[in-house]
Amino acid sequence: MTVPEKLAALCRRMEEEGVDVYLVPTGDDHSSEYAGDYYNCRAWLTGFTGSAGTAAVACTPQGMEAGLWTDGRYFIQAARQLEGTGITLYRMGEPGVPTLAQWLETHLSRGGVLGYDGRVLPSAEVKRLSQALDGVILHRELDLVGDIWADRPARSCRPAWELDEAHAGRSRTDKLARIRAEMAEQEADCLVLPALDDIAWLLNLRGDDVACNPVVLAFSAVEPERVLLFAQPAAFDEALQKRLAADGVELAPYEEIYDYVKALPEGTTLWMDAAQAGDALWNSVPADVLLLDEESPVRLRKACKNPTELEEERRAHVKDGAALCRFLYWLKHRVGKEPITECSAAEKLEQLRKEQPGYLGPSFATIAAYGAHGAIVHYAPTPETDIPLEPKGLFLVDSGGQYLAATTDVTRTVALGPVTDREREMFTLVLRSHLALGAVQFREGCRGDGLDVVARGPLWERGLDFNHGTGHGVGCLLNVHEDPVRIRWRAMDGMPPFMEGMVVSNEPGFYEEGAFGIRTENLMACRKAVQNQYGTFLNFETLTLAPIDLDAVDPAGLDEREKDRLNRYHARVYREIAPLLPPEEAAWLKTATRPI
Amino acid sequence: MTVPEKLAALCRRMEEEGVDVYLVPTGDDHSSEYAGDYYNCRAWLTGFTGSAGTAAVACTPQGMEAGLWTDGRYFIQAARQLEGTGITLYRMGEPGVPTLAQWLETHLSRGGVLGYDGRVLPSAEVKRLSQALDGVILHRELDLVGDIWADRPARSCRPAWELDEAHAGRSRTDKLARIRAEMAEQEADCLVLPALDDIAWLLNLRGDDVACNPVVLAFSAVEPERVLLFAQPAAFDEALQKRLAADGVELAPYEEIYDYVKALPEGTTLWMDAAQAGDALWNSVPADVLLLDEESPVRLRKACKNPTELEEERRAHVKDGAALCRFLYWLKHRVGKEPITECSAAEKLEQLRKEQPGYLGPSFATIAAYGAHGAIVHYAPTPETDIPLEPKGLFLVDSGGQYLAATTDVTRTVALGPVTDREREMFTLVLRSHLALGAVQFREGCRGDGLDVVARGPLWERGLDFNHGTGHGVGCLLNVHEDPVRIRWRAMDGMPPFMEGMVVSNEPGFYEEGAFGIRTENLMACRKAVQNQYGTFLNFETLTLAPIDLDAVDPAGLDEREKDRLNRYHARVYREIAPLLPPEEAAWLKTATRPI
Repeated sequence: MTVPEKLAALCRRMEEEGVDVYLVPTGDDHSSEYAGDYYNCRAWLTGFTGSAGTAAVACTPQGMEAGLWTDGRYFIQAARQLEGTGITLYRMGEPGVPTLAQWLETHLSRGGVLGYDGRVLPSAEVKRLSQALDGVILHRELDLVGDIWADRPARSCRPAWELDEAHAGRSRTDKLARIRAEMAEQEADCLVLPALDDIAWLLNLRGDDVACNPVVLAFSAVEPERVLLFAQPAAFDEALQKRLAADGVELAPYEEIYDYVKALPEGTTLWMDAAQAGDALWNSVPADVLLLDEESPVRLRKACKNPTELEEERRAHVKDGAALCRFLYWLKHRVGKEPITECSAAEKLEQLRKEQPGYLGPSFATIAAYGAHGAIVHYAPTPETDIPLEPKGLFLVDSGGQYLAATTDVTRTVALGPVTDREREMFTLVLRSHLALGAVQFREGCRGDGLDVVARGPLWERGLDFNHGTGHGVGCLLNVHEDPVRIRWRAMDGMPPFMEGMVVSNEPGFYEEGAFGIRTENLMACRKAVQNQYGTFLNFETLTLAPIDLDAVDPAGLDEREKDRLNRYHARVYREIAPLLPPEEAAWLKTATRPI
Repeated sequence: MTVPEKLAALCRRMEEEGVDVYLVPTGDDHSSEYAGDYYNCRAWLTGFTGSAGTAAVACTPQGMEAGLWTDGRYFIQAARQLEGTGITLYRMGEPGVPTLAQWLETHLSRGGVLGYDGRVLPSAEVKRLSQALDGVILHRELDLVGDIWADRPARSCRPAWELDEAHAGRSRTDKLARIRAEMAEQEADCLVLPALDDIAWLLNLRGDDVACNPVVLAFSAVEPERVLLFAQPAAFDEALQKRLAADGVELAPYEEIYDYVKALPEGTTLWMDAAQAGDALWNSVPADVLLLDEESPVRLRKACKNPTELEEERRAHVKDGAALCRFLYWLKHRVGKEPITECSAAEKLEQLRKEQPGYLGPSFATIAAYGAHGAIVHYAPTPETDIPLEPKGLFLVDSGGQYLAATTDVTRTVALGPVTDREREMFTLVLRSHLALGAVQFREGCRGDGLDVVARGPLWERGLDFNHGTGHGVGCLLNVHEDPVRIRWRAMDGMPPFMEGMVVSNEPGFYEEGAFGIRTENLMACRKAVQNQYGTFLNFETLTLAPIDLDAVDPAGLDEREKDRLNRYHARVYREIAPLLPPEEAAWLKTATRPI
């Protein structure tokens, strides 16, 4: 089927259902950042394969009109992929471009009907559109694209497995007891968890249903006496089902979550976070159920890693550091001598990670960006964009792994040969920013917006900046982007203060369009530093262990304190990683981590 | 009348009115930080003269019980002054001490009657007590202390005067037009301003009704076609009344504000900020009036000084700097040679300020604290606490002036002779903190909580801190503490981002109980630094001009950038202030501002 044929088929279904406008978002039932192929109705319908975008189709007797909204990362790709489809590209945030809400207002009159699959549209998104939807009739249970998508892939159903207490640090019964205590405090009778990583953490389950995110497709409902796990039974072998049952966790069919919520008895107090629920789930709650719309109590507990998880993080980072050091050695020595491209370099790194014991797979799609590609913040090489590396300029590699039992995420920008003065100057400035955040000590109660003012200081004082967050929370053998921890200077409601055990990335950067991109990223764990009459002070333990390329550093651009911080970090990298390397590579690491 | 006699008289009035508990707060009708003698019912009734405290009196057939709640600054003074009065002192925040709300819960049963003068009790305070007042009957229009206070001072009624446009930068008609445009946007029919400084700024009026704060006792109501100024007519001479009338500002008797609000027509949309209104004013609003409880639109406009106001600030700071330099010269040369005490030093400084043209008076009570007194953050010397200065140790002087037409606020800590290593080390650390905040450059949108993380960095990295805000907004020939601008690390709702023209203090400190106190304070104006493809960057222009005592600095504790910042500041102090000094003092200033 061509895209116009698909659109025509969709219009026919819309007519049958009496729908004027149909929305096709990108996502699953769980407000996940990434979702499996089963969920990619928007890509199938429009041909646009980017990771973010929403399509809307209006059918009237006068004809069909379709639009697609996506952000700056995808303007070029979307324009190319939508060519000839008849779908209009709406470049979000560009001047004069109508928002989806504005478009809906023009295309829906009072009494008009908007259809969508409410399971996969976050309730928060519907709230954002609500003003445009005033007086509009919503048909929220229509999977019309699913109806016409003949060869739709099945929903992922990979085996679920148990993360044992030795790796998780706490048993699921222990975690459940604490969550139930919080529920009792809030007088909640039931806690419904839509977020896949919340469920994985709480029940010590892992899976493989979302690429790079080791989660199991499921919903969960925690009650005082039992836990319901709405999941695909085929994903659970008998032994695991028994162990879950022994801890009071009952399996139920995945899709029954909706009926479960609809059947909650009158007067129940239900704890469910609207920010994580799909619109259909949110609207399944009966009117006589009292809703406690607060952040799930799992999120902050999951964010604060326990001592076992932190120990797992440290162990995984030594392995990951060894793989990355071997990669850097190979890259520095082979570039210009054998053909290497962005893609082949990324593959080499993956191959070296695979040699590490306990490695399970990448934690996200590797960004391997040479030269001007480095300035495209979300660039990931594809066979079409792949370019050869030359022995000059900067190569940015942002990658990470899932290990038993922790997650890594690291960026190094490598001088493949001579670099320009400008590249060296900016590399050094970004390094100052990275070192400042790594060394900051602060009162308990500080949030990520305040810390970012410290991190960006070296760039800001020069009137420079970069256009992404400085840090994000990271899961432990879970999602590499884990809310709610953030380091970003714009204050956000609900930003939690830093607490002991939170793991966060430290990744300032600088990007010069058409020329180069620089980012230096370590993961760090928040820890208690001092407690005295002035208060409790926290700081960060750096987890990532890999040299920062001194070939790109201008030592004159660092003051003594900064040099000292870098030298102490490098001494630690050598001490912890060298024993894992062959002698020649260890000797190279000695030089790569020399004091400056 | 003795305190017990006053309490007995109050109980009789309470019985007559059927009141079980009577509350006596500290404050005026305008939620002002400071209030005049007329308003000090609590001090008259209890004998406790501190600037903060609330008294509560319960009368039952079984007898009378009275309590006074005050904070840590006043525990010692209150204990002494309440001795023998029969009033129990409740030390706020101490373990085991009941809060006022808890005390009210014990002393008021359901259906009990609580009386107070709702004009002078902020509505926000009543809201805080509301849980304790569940089921209690409120008599909010009872000034029972006023009834028995025979020789109560009259309400201040000093002449109001006009601040001409040449000093204010904008005419009142211009300011009113902008405020009315904001009212139209919010669809507000009437804006009631309870805050004295909002009114003074909006109508270009000044007065002398609150010590150190050049404001006129008044309420104001802005309507689309007229402004009502509820004030004491005797404060306005005929010429001023005419000029106000010409701009559409009608005088009305001060107390008629309450009837005005009660008589607002049905369906009126009234803009009034609950955080600024007294409980009586808040409760005067008829039920059929729509309340817009938002921050007054005057506050943010007042906070962002216009170019004329900033020029006035700069001019006043040169004069103030000259007076302070003369004072420092005198202090450094005379201490140990003639008897000087905390009080006499403060008087000398006031005398030197008086010699400056345009000086109108102090902007707050001078803090002049020698040695261990410096560690008492709110210390102001009195004849009872006054001590002689000796030629050793640290002397902290925090003072400021009202000038035509600007306000100053400056703290210098001076080495009167040899200082200990610890004092020098901590002085240098506080200086690093002060210099860091003075030099910070940041993206438009940053707030005072983020900037404070930068300011406190040098202390926090040593596990040290001080227990007050790092910065407060300052008015322009208005209140020295002007909300909503703040630099304090704990995030607060409603904290505005920094904007061009905001004037704020930079006053980190360090206090060692029983030993010494250090604070270094300059005022700064926020200004635009750079606007480019990365965003808009702001930084601060330092307004205050006076040497920071190099005799207390350890140069080895500063890095090159910090030394450079200090040296450039000192060079500017010398350049701008020396021309105003006699030759001998100018020569001293040259040394005092030498590069290190």
